Amino acid sequence: MSANSAFSKLDALSRKLEAIEHAQSMLGVDEAVMMPVGGGEKRAETMSTLAGMYHEMATAPEVGDWLGDAEAEPLDEMQSLAIREFRRVHTNMTCLSADFVRKQVNARIRAEQLWRELRPTGDWAGFLPAFEGLVATAREEAQLRADVLGLSPYDALMEQYDPGNRVAEVAPVLNDLKTFLKDFVPAALAHQEAKLARRPLKPLNAPFAIDKQKALGLVMMEAVGFDFEHGRLDVSHHPFCGGVPTDIRMTTRYTEGEFLTSLMGILHETGHGLYEQGLPKEWTHWPVGRARGMAMHESQSLFVEKQIARSPEFWEWAMPHVREKLGAEAIAGWDLEDVLAHVHFIERGLIRVDADEATYPLHVILRFELEQDLISGKLAPKDVPAAWDAKMREYLGLSTIDNMKDGPMQDVHWPSGAIGYFPSYTLGAIIAAQLWSAIERDQPNAREDMRNGRFVGINDWRRENIWSQASKYSTPELLQRATGEKLNSKHFQEHLARRYLS
Amino acid sequence: MSANSAFSKLDALSRKLEAIEHAQSMLGVDEAVMMPVGGGEKRAETMSTLAGMYHEMATAPEVGDWLGDAEAEPLDEMQSLAIREFRRVHTNMTCLSADFVRKQVNARIRAEQLWRELRPTGDWAGFLPAFEGLVATAREEAQLRADVLGLSPYDALMEQYDPGNRVAEVAPVLNDLKTFLKDFVPAALAHQEAKLARRPLKPLNAPFAIDKQKALGLVMMEAVGFDFEHGRLDVSHHPFCGGVPTDIRMTTRYTEGEFLTSLMGILHETGHGLYEQGLPKEWTHWPVGRARGMAMHESQSLFVEKQIARSPEFWEWAMPHVREKLGAEAIAGWDLEDVLAHVHFIERGLIRVDADEATYPLHVILRFELEQDLISGKLAPKDVPAAWDAKMREYLGLSTIDNMKDGPMQDVHWPSGAIGYFPSYTLGAIIAAQLWSAIERDQPNAREDMRNGRFVGINDWRRENIWSQASKYSTPELLQRATGEKLNSKHFQEHLARRYLS
Repeated sequence: MSANSAFSKLDALSRKLEAIEHAQSMLGVDEAVMMPVGGGEKRAETMSTLAGMYHEMATAPEVGDWLGDAEAEPLDEMQSLAIREFRRVHTNMTCLSADFVRKQVNARIRAEQLWRELRPTGDWAGFLPAFEGLVATAREEAQLRADVLGLSPYDALMEQYDPGNRVAEVAPVLNDLKTFLKDFVPAALAHQEAKLARRPLKPLNAPFAIDKQKALGLVMMEAVGFDFEHGRLDVSHHPFCGGVPTDIRMTTRYTEGEFLTSLMGILHETGHGLYEQGLPKEWTHWPVGRARGMAMHESQSLFVEKQIARSPEFWEWAMPHVREKLGAEAIAGWDLEDVLAHVHFIERGLIRVDADEATYPLHVILRFELEQDLISGKLAPKDVPAAWDAKMREYLGLSTIDNMKDGPMQDVHWPSGAIGYFPSYTLGAIIAAQLWSAIERDQPNAREDMRNGRFVGINDWRRENIWSQASKYSTPELLQRATGEKLNSKHFQEHLARRYLS
Repeated sequence: MSANSAFSKLDALSRKLEAIEHAQSMLGVDEAVMMPVGGGEKRAETMSTLAGMYHEMATAPEVGDWLGDAEAEPLDEMQSLAIREFRRVHTNMTCLSADFVRKQVNARIRAEQLWRELRPTGDWAGFLPAFEGLVATAREEAQLRADVLGLSPYDALMEQYDPGNRVAEVAPVLNDLKTFLKDFVPAALAHQEAKLARRPLKPLNAPFAIDKQKALGLVMMEAVGFDFEHGRLDVSHHPFCGGVPTDIRMTTRYTEGEFLTSLMGILHETGHGLYEQGLPKEWTHWPVGRARGMAMHESQSLFVEKQIARSPEFWEWAMPHVREKLGAEAIAGWDLEDVLAHVHFIERGLIRVDADEATYPLHVILRFELEQDLISGKLAPKDVPAAWDAKMREYLGLSTIDNMKDGPMQDVHWPSGAIGYFPSYTLGAIIAAQLWSAIERDQPNAREDMRNGRFVGINDWRRENIWSQASKYSTPELLQRATGEKLNSKHFQEHLARRYLS
């Protein structure tokens, strides 16, 4: 490829964009982990200026020309995929006018600020005008994207988060899961009640010193494959996995009263980190070298958290490490079943982010259904509280009609304008279970490996089938190639039944 | 000022450049404080890409046009100064061709890599070819700059570090100081010997726990005026003061065997930090809003370290804090004189960075003299070892002829191409003493303030006369305005005599 080829020009541009993203990512990490409060104003100005520079460079008129020219150049297979993905990203980035984006940013800022102010008191009436403005803008955005992408409006929104995911394929899978969960959740709760009647939940022997918890977390991270030459663990108020593939910055939050929440959180974020660390190094500056969307990313974190780190086999291996790192008194007299009773504890609740893996999908499906109707116009913003309450009562037997704070005002997503994102969470859980089944099919000793703290085979499979594939394929294609099956919730249902009904 | 004015265009460009600098600065801090080793390669690539983007934007052809247009626009006084300083920076940045800069970067990389490899064994013969290449390029650079700036070649190099500093004014001051020190150093050493014979140096009661040392450092930083809303202290292998004015990132390095070196280092870097924190907020994105050069910056760190933190008055206040933070046993049975014997301890040595304030200037003057001759061609690179040895013997009575490692190969400056920088260190020490004298003239109770841990008056004076002035004036103008005197070493000589001969 000559240095004057359109492909080379896009390669050079990609390196500049990657440098800005690297800076944005690390400045974001620094802000959460290190920055003193007075640095915030100038930092926000800097982030906004860098974002503007990024957008200006990525959407400059010549970029479209280079893409057209590159498509006509002789390219090898990976280069062709790189151009296809660059084109997809470019189309998604350029399909809204600058005027519309400004209007949208204002609607989002207004709604999010008002949400932060009014959420504590659940003042829906106060919030509604901003929410109406936001939904109107989201409908307009969905239509603008739909026109360019040749998709339905809601599909066009989902396309930003999970390329290739369509309501036509996703909705039946989630409906199937919903039907399953309506009977499963009561059965699992009854099963748990009977178990706990026989063997009550043992209290944790707090306090757990934070340095000891950290040491335990580091051992677990390393065991499941995190590369500390290319990443680290810090503390922040909201745990996250940030940084860049060669330098993953994970955070957690500790409390001395309990160690399992933080440990599971660390392992969840480690799943995100492993995906990033496993991306192909030579393509990190191209869109095709990035992780494939939100659902696949969440599948990797949920794989480590739910499939590995909450499994009985994992805990057989982990319990001696807990005793060694936290001290023998931490879980004195505990058997495996006592830990599992904690990490498998389920209950119905109002709040999505606090939900367990059995009830979480119902929270997501509720939002998925409501936001489709919001975008299509079938549901008016003012009618959300009633619709929310009806579904909460139907799916989880709980009412939120007098509790907006823990009902439709609980999440930041809608106020910040993220519509089409919620399904990714549960698709991630479904994909994680589907991947585990495929691994067990290919590696019949996978559970035995976990029991012995060996994660190399499991990680090699994921590296080959998911991580190294980056964004070469759409989300459904990637899943089909990796597992030989289309997206389906069968494996997730079996996973839940095995864990919560036996 | 209309949004279409040339001034406004330069203002908008400055905000973009500031955002890149903010990113570069914080990525640099992160690299030293947080980054895992495997992140280095991509980080280096990112830094290089950002530097290229910065240079491209700052030297784009239209910038020169905007400067010309802005000079003709109606500007208030500060705006005029802003354009003047922008012009100065722009001239310094554009006076070398891209081809020359590439050649120079290669010469520097080669020399610095070879220096790192050969310094441990002091292999001068192996290093010489690269050093010759480097000096040849530096001579060419000096001539190119000199032609554009209308200065002599060496002045043109100094101009990058300390705008307005000229050999014609600096050399007589440093010569005067050299003459003074030739007699002063032996006298001060004899005085010290007599003192220590009467009252021997008390050993420190190590170990000093690192968390206690950190607590002590934070108390001292806060006392001398560091704003922790806009900065923090961390640990790195090489201590530095980085970040941005609204978010100063200082580092230090601790050893359990000793606490004074780290504490003095913290206070030195705090001096740099105070300067940055005191810059005018509304101009941080313009060159005129930056700190005024290396000598003035060093004067601020040396002011805090040498004028304040090694003074008897400071230690009268500080000793109870040391006892409180490190524990009473840390300096059990010590009087003020015992601490002062440590913080005023002087000795002749080969290594500049280890030198005390009495001998340090002689190391600098040696380099200042040699590098002028290297640039003029009077001294050939191959003759540096002999010239270095002759001066070391004359100034400090020590020979380096068989010890290149601790002779001309000790510093990274020349191998990395920084010629014209060394004088800044000693000019900083001279300026710090000159500023102290001016403060004592204006605030006769300044020493009494220190004795009581009150630094507000001293800092207000510096804020008004130095920090808030940013880069409105050249280094000599700024000093003259602040102290009412031209640069002179009288106050520094008096400071040394008071401290080391009484």
